[in-house]
Amino acid sequence: MPDMHTQSDLEAGLLALVGPRGMLLGLDAEAYCTDWRGLYHGATPAVIRPANTDEVAAIVRFCAERRIAIVPQGGNTSMVGGATPSADGTQIVLSLSRMTAIRALDPADLTLTVEAGLPWKRAQDAAAEAGCLLPLSISSEGTAQVGGILSANAGGNTTIRYGNARELVLGLEVVLPDGQVIHGLRSLRKDNTGYNLRGLFVGAEGTLGIITAAVLKLAPALRDRVTALCTLPTADAATTLFRAFQAADQGAVQAFEYMSGAGMDLVLHHIDGTTLPVEPALHYALIELGSPREAAGLRTMMEAVLERALEDGLVLDAALAESEAQRQALWRLREEHSEAQKRDGASVKNDVSVPPSRVPALIQQATAACAALIPGIRAAPFGHLGDGNIHFNLLAPPGMEGAAFLGRSHDIMDCVNQVVRELDGSFSAEHGVGQLKTDMMEAWRGGAELSAMRRIKAALDPAGIMNPGKVLPA
Amino acid sequence: MPDMHTQSDLEAGLLALVGPRGMLLGLDAEAYCTDWRGLYHGATPAVIRPANTDEVAAIVRFCAERRIAIVPQGGNTSMVGGATPSADGTQIVLSLSRMTAIRALDPADLTLTVEAGLPWKRAQDAAAEAGCLLPLSISSEGTAQVGGILSANAGGNTTIRYGNARELVLGLEVVLPDGQVIHGLRSLRKDNTGYNLRGLFVGAEGTLGIITAAVLKLAPALRDRVTALCTLPTADAATTLFRAFQAADQGAVQAFEYMSGAGMDLVLHHIDGTTLPVEPALHYALIELGSPREAAGLRTMMEAVLERALEDGLVLDAALAESEAQRQALWRLREEHSEAQKRDGASVKNDVSVPPSRVPALIQQATAACAALIPGIRAAPFGHLGDGNIHFNLLAPPGMEGAAFLGRSHDIMDCVNQVVRELDGSFSAEHGVGQLKTDMMEAWRGGAELSAMRRIKAALDPAGIMNPGKVLPA
Repeated sequence: MPDMHTQSDLEAGLLALVGPRGMLLGLDAEAYCTDWRGLYHGATPAVIRPANTDEVAAIVRFCAERRIAIVPQGGNTSMVGGATPSADGTQIVLSLSRMTAIRALDPADLTLTVEAGLPWKRAQDAAAEAGCLLPLSISSEGTAQVGGILSANAGGNTTIRYGNARELVLGLEVVLPDGQVIHGLRSLRKDNTGYNLRGLFVGAEGTLGIITAAVLKLAPALRDRVTALCTLPTADAATTLFRAFQAADQGAVQAFEYMSGAGMDLVLHHIDGTTLPVEPALHYALIELGSPREAAGLRTMMEAVLERALEDGLVLDAALAESEAQRQALWRLREEHSEAQKRDGASVKNDVSVPPSRVPALIQQATAACAALIPGIRAAPFGHLGDGNIHFNLLAPPGMEGAAFLGRSHDIMDCVNQVVRELDGSFSAEHGVGQLKTDMMEAWRGGAELSAMRRIKAALDPAGIMNPGKVLPA
Repeated sequence: MPDMHTQSDLEAGLLALVGPRGMLLGLDAEAYCTDWRGLYHGATPAVIRPANTDEVAAIVRFCAERRIAIVPQGGNTSMVGGATPSADGTQIVLSLSRMTAIRALDPADLTLTVEAGLPWKRAQDAAAEAGCLLPLSISSEGTAQVGGILSANAGGNTTIRYGNARELVLGLEVVLPDGQVIHGLRSLRKDNTGYNLRGLFVGAEGTLGIITAAVLKLAPALRDRVTALCTLPTADAATTLFRAFQAADQGAVQAFEYMSGAGMDLVLHHIDGTTLPVEPALHYALIELGSPREAAGLRTMMEAVLERALEDGLVLDAALAESEAQRQALWRLREEHSEAQKRDGASVKNDVSVPPSRVPALIQQATAACAALIPGIRAAPFGHLGDGNIHFNLLAPPGMEGAAFLGRSHDIMDCVNQVVRELDGSFSAEHGVGQLKTDMMEAWRGGAELSAMRRIKAALDPAGIMNPGKVLPA
């Protein structure tokens, strides 16, 4: 295919569609060819930056006719190489970054219509200015764009209350792999008129078409909020405590995050200005309750549940944030986990999920299995306990070379995934499949499920030009 | 196709797969061939009632080999003829009614795993016995089955809080049109491993495969609840009041139902034992707040919002239920709307949706448009104002013959839909497309959207044996 047209023909053709502002070549294109984690180093004949949906459609038609593969890219923050082109230099990168318009904001109907290239944080800010909340919060939200967040079906801290990205989408505008445009920017809460296409494009990681705009559901802004950090004797106590909060008021639990003592120690050691407002322990939970109601009684509820948990021995110690500054300091202990682990040296990441009640079993069994594989290995699991989604990260034993440890990455991932599988879990909770995990699809989703996925892919993208090499194994 | 095998060959083949308990013929099959509304009268060579998923798969393989069409059927409560076979007698009815097992109930993880043939009410009861709530409540829940409710993506009164059926599904078991089985009964809150197949099968109305079991999300049971009936001066006031409740505490609003004065009068006239606890008016709202928290302060919140609304002239009068009996009496005024309209004579039903803030415009404009079409026509709109979903039902003018009125059905529906379209709404909010509305798909969802749906259908069901004639126009 690449030999059917020279680089200069290709450039000229694409240039005619998007103009000089819409094209990056050579060195300018390089940053778009490496993923955020530095796992994949691709190459591309051109990065195309269309200004609007019509240009996206024109590029897709141009590429479809020539069977040129397209890699849609948002903020390039994929954890699984989902937006990085292949190394052979045949795949165009289509960056949505110039499409950043806020098309509509309706506080009455609680909807926000935005283009795919808008960074998520800017969409959040626009909602906040209108007295609303755009749910879904992830650490990369300043860079990650709407289109990427939807294509990955991102999750984050507040999934427990508001759902994943998919649950926030009312309508979508999508350019199909043949260049046709689905004009589906509807703002309806109920619309049973045929197949659920928007649910399919969300989470398809750009392999079925390109999301160019979306209608997102907003929530009323929070006017009462209370945040606490607790220490717990066991991971089991954390799930019991989670259930107590859920029973007290499921709708008020904004976040319930778990952190291991090992992970917390790394944060306190590596991140300047972090301090612990409680006695150190082996297990931590960060709990946030929120309500759009002023004076909703959340502090009373938090204290009541924690007091009872202290009496029952489920909680060892607890600290409530008394100010926004204290609240942010508590959240920093959670949010700096990745950075602290990065500074500590080599680590192997596992974004896995199990039914929430099995999180303690996951932590215990995966820690033991990894220790048997590599004596001295340090497990630092943390994450969204309420969703059963744990980032089961592992660090090299003291004294082991980083390269040697990373050489065992696949063994370590297999070891964790074996436990996850026995607990009826998933090898990818919120990061997606991308390039990193395509080879796991056959074993985990093989048979009728993968067969149906392949048939859908072939039906919508018969030439296979849309983000090839991602999600589905070759 | 039917001439490729005689009736007796067919019977013998199917009998061998399901045994005598699994097959109904002749008169026994007739009840399965007419829809609940009496709009469609089909015929079938046999009603097959498999006992388990293996039998469903065997029947589908048998039919796929012979290109015999299959109509999956649950409780047969479709409002759009979605589960009724064609009149030519070539389509097998596959009733799930023998598959009623509760496979698992996990109050800790708030999940319920049930087979497709279980009536929804029995699933609700099982959840309640375990101290949980299975959300989604519709008037046919005593008869409608899990598989049908999911296949139709049913909505109902509590969508505003818990979402449609699709939002309640964590995992699915599905028999594909070639007889392969997707074993996807996962209980995970986050699972980004390929395309969202479950979201696709939910709402596909049995045209892409047969749902045989599902993992449903539960909520904690409610321990505080308050219900009120208000009268309002305008429909506009109803949406403003809805927003006031949403701002007060979005998570607490279980239901916000609108009823017109005309509809209420019919209930009071036709339904024994109904009385109005407020002064009659042109517009009514039924509001229910709920919380899993005991003494959550909902009554205080209800009173505060209503008091302010009374001061602002948004509400004319209000009555709060003081007992469970009073609560049920208030709900009866809403739930008997369909029955009262049925007793009153001929009616034309429109299950439409618009963005919620446009409900007053819908009511006003559609009422005027219908009055211009048929002078004296009586509009009795009611429904889920919080979702923008109104059942815009119309009754014959006094003195007009029912048959003459029904002869104008299509004109009336077109008239309402014209208004809905101008308000960016949908011609089917929660009832689906079925047979009744396939001819509207081209005009409303044509182009890229319908093209993508057709390609997905062809990919998963290339022989077109799965519920042909439903959802997609021929």
